[in-house]
Amino acid sequence: MTVGIVGAGQLGRMLALAGYPLGLDFLFLDPAKDAPAGRVAPVLHGLFTDPELLAELARRSEVLTFDWENVSVDALRALAASPAKSSGARKKSRTPDERPRGARICPPIPALATAQDRVSEKRLFERLKIPTTRWRAVGSGAQLERAIREIGLPGVIKTRRLGYDGKGQAVIRTPADAERAWEEFGAVGLIYEEWIPFDCEVSIIGARSRRGEVAIYPLNGNVHAQGILRLTRAPFGPPRWHRLAARYLERVLTHFHYTGILTIEFFVRSGRLIANEMAPRVHNSGHWTIEGAVTSQFENHLRAILDLPLGSTRPVGYSAMINLIGSMPARATILAEAGVHLHHYDKEPRPGRKVGHCTIVEATHLRRDRRARQLLNELAPGIRIP
Amino acid sequence: MTVGIVGAGQLGRMLALAGYPLGLDFLFLDPAKDAPAGRVAPVLHGLFTDPELLAELARRSEVLTFDWENVSVDALRALAASPAKSSGARKKSRTPDERPRGARICPPIPALATAQDRVSEKRLFERLKIPTTRWRAVGSGAQLERAIREIGLPGVIKTRRLGYDGKGQAVIRTPADAERAWEEFGAVGLIYEEWIPFDCEVSIIGARSRRGEVAIYPLNGNVHAQGILRLTRAPFGPPRWHRLAARYLERVLTHFHYTGILTIEFFVRSGRLIANEMAPRVHNSGHWTIEGAVTSQFENHLRAILDLPLGSTRPVGYSAMINLIGSMPARATILAEAGVHLHHYDKEPRPGRKVGHCTIVEATHLRRDRRARQLLNELAPGIRIP
Repeated sequence: MTVGIVGAGQLGRMLALAGYPLGLDFLFLDPAKDAPAGRVAPVLHGLFTDPELLAELARRSEVLTFDWENVSVDALRALAASPAKSSGARKKSRTPDERPRGARICPPIPALATAQDRVSEKRLFERLKIPTTRWRAVGSGAQLERAIREIGLPGVIKTRRLGYDGKGQAVIRTPADAERAWEEFGAVGLIYEEWIPFDCEVSIIGARSRRGEVAIYPLNGNVHAQGILRLTRAPFGPPRWHRLAARYLERVLTHFHYTGILTIEFFVRSGRLIANEMAPRVHNSGHWTIEGAVTSQFENHLRAILDLPLGSTRPVGYSAMINLIGSMPARATILAEAGVHLHHYDKEPRPGRKVGHCTIVEATHLRRDRRARQLLNELAPGIRIP
Repeated sequence: MTVGIVGAGQLGRMLALAGYPLGLDFLFLDPAKDAPAGRVAPVLHGLFTDPELLAELARRSEVLTFDWENVSVDALRALAASPAKSSGARKKSRTPDERPRGARICPPIPALATAQDRVSEKRLFERLKIPTTRWRAVGSGAQLERAIREIGLPGVIKTRRLGYDGKGQAVIRTPADAERAWEEFGAVGLIYEEWIPFDCEVSIIGARSRRGEVAIYPLNGNVHAQGILRLTRAPFGPPRWHRLAARYLERVLTHFHYTGILTIEFFVRSGRLIANEMAPRVHNSGHWTIEGAVTSQFENHLRAILDLPLGSTRPVGYSAMINLIGSMPARATILAEAGVHLHHYDKEPRPGRKVGHCTIVEATHLRRDRRARQLLNELAPGIRIP
């Protein structure tokens, strides 16, 4: 049984590594010749929007999924509508009332479309009564001025689309900042949000299968620097935070009749959870689940989209995951650290690029926090745990 | 960095899946077009003894290892002696005093040669003062008669070479049994051993790296049926058994200046450990380490042969591993069991064939034993835990 994955980055690579023990095969689509998943599975090389390659991917796969959220919604919609599955061997066995059907794509395209546009995302959060930051869509200099007047300073300007790892956003403290940001990003649709002086950042990750089974992981506590996730600790925070976050996540899962893994990131301020954004995919803040939970987010994504029973999301200890950014430390240096699990993405070094991560699982949260501090110190000096 | 592996069975497949997160690449050699590791890594297809393919494997790899112990010792010896590494890109950078060197092969070939011949193995155990069964080499009918006279009945006839999963052996209870066994196996070298009415079977697995670091896993308790391993539980037995087994294992590791994972299987009788056989490779009784130990036997084999620091062998709970023999139960049936980790080898079903395994990790040994019983009952009815 083959799973087709649009995007062959490290998330796709980890999906394949989680799926092989289940007896699954994988086929990827990616323009990059040296994409990380290409070392572990076959790749169709070409544009994410290439209709012929997408059709081939669909034809050769039981189900399609994606490993990043900037995949073209239009291309996937066309694929879901086209009778890709009707060609080849299946033709012969088709009975008269079986209509040719399009590719099965999970998670659902409407969830992907919503996550791609910060304005749709905000509207969804508001509709589902999930607290979020105050915001205004900004399409002109005048609208930006009005948004700043209504929401106040400081604030954050973000592009509506294609932002990741802190790219496409800027903090606005003065009218001059706003002007600079407008010059930099003004050509595309923007959103202006209030800036939240948060106590900490958390995320919640859960899976929903086609038949409606839901499994939610313990809450993740996340530390970013320069917009890039550096550290995740899980389980994190008081049970009340987890309950709140899980309730919000379930609303979104139910709303979309969702299938697969979904992530929501929150700011925490004075015990309130304020939704920042969602990702319709396995998430960097869930990488600790490979060693730190009974079933990893990658395996549960596959179980969910193949309508298999979901696996337990129970943590097996207190985990910390540290991203390796820019370049890989020597393998022997990392592996000399007791109990450290290395995940090397086989990517060329580049400033600000996620090239790997490592995870520890400890018996208590105090030991976990102490080791996380020590490892951060060695692997990413300068990053402080709040 | 590429690791070359002779044999692309499930052990090779699990080595590759353990090595990808370390950023390693893999290349296999196997005659079978549908070998399990071929779904996850490239394979050179051809005979294990093909000198050209072996040379190519060596040329394209940093180090060579094997995933079964019946690889040709002669072919590997030739490879270790030939200057395979001197061709290609390396030629240019060679300085005058760098001699062309042969392939680096781990574990060491003498350990492989010893494990391939039950007589050499017995002699090694005796030399290292590791208790083993009484035995006689048998090359003729007269020698077999004398062996039975000296050692007594019942006994076990085994082929000296190429036995696995209970193949090539027979229990001898009467002189008529001996005659039948002689007719079946007599054409090849044999060994006659005393039959041990054991209390249970255990195995010990450990790694030694090139620099001499040693890491030993907790003791495995094994249950066989029809000569095939069905169940492993670990940690197993009193600490004294573990200490004894670990001491014996260390003697063999030291003797060979061993590099990689080594396994020794023992019978336990009245608190004594009696060595049955050794395997110079990752072992079926160590599959539980994937989820049940901090570092799996597969990762530690790779760390050892690449001279990286060894990972912790600490168990993270009480594990049971159940082999799936003959054919795979439906995926959804296995995954519906809470906390069960499936390992599907992607092999065609065939009676007596190992097609997969599954593992559970529980918080106490009582819960582990109870669940193991229940799972055995569902997946392999008729197998009793002693």
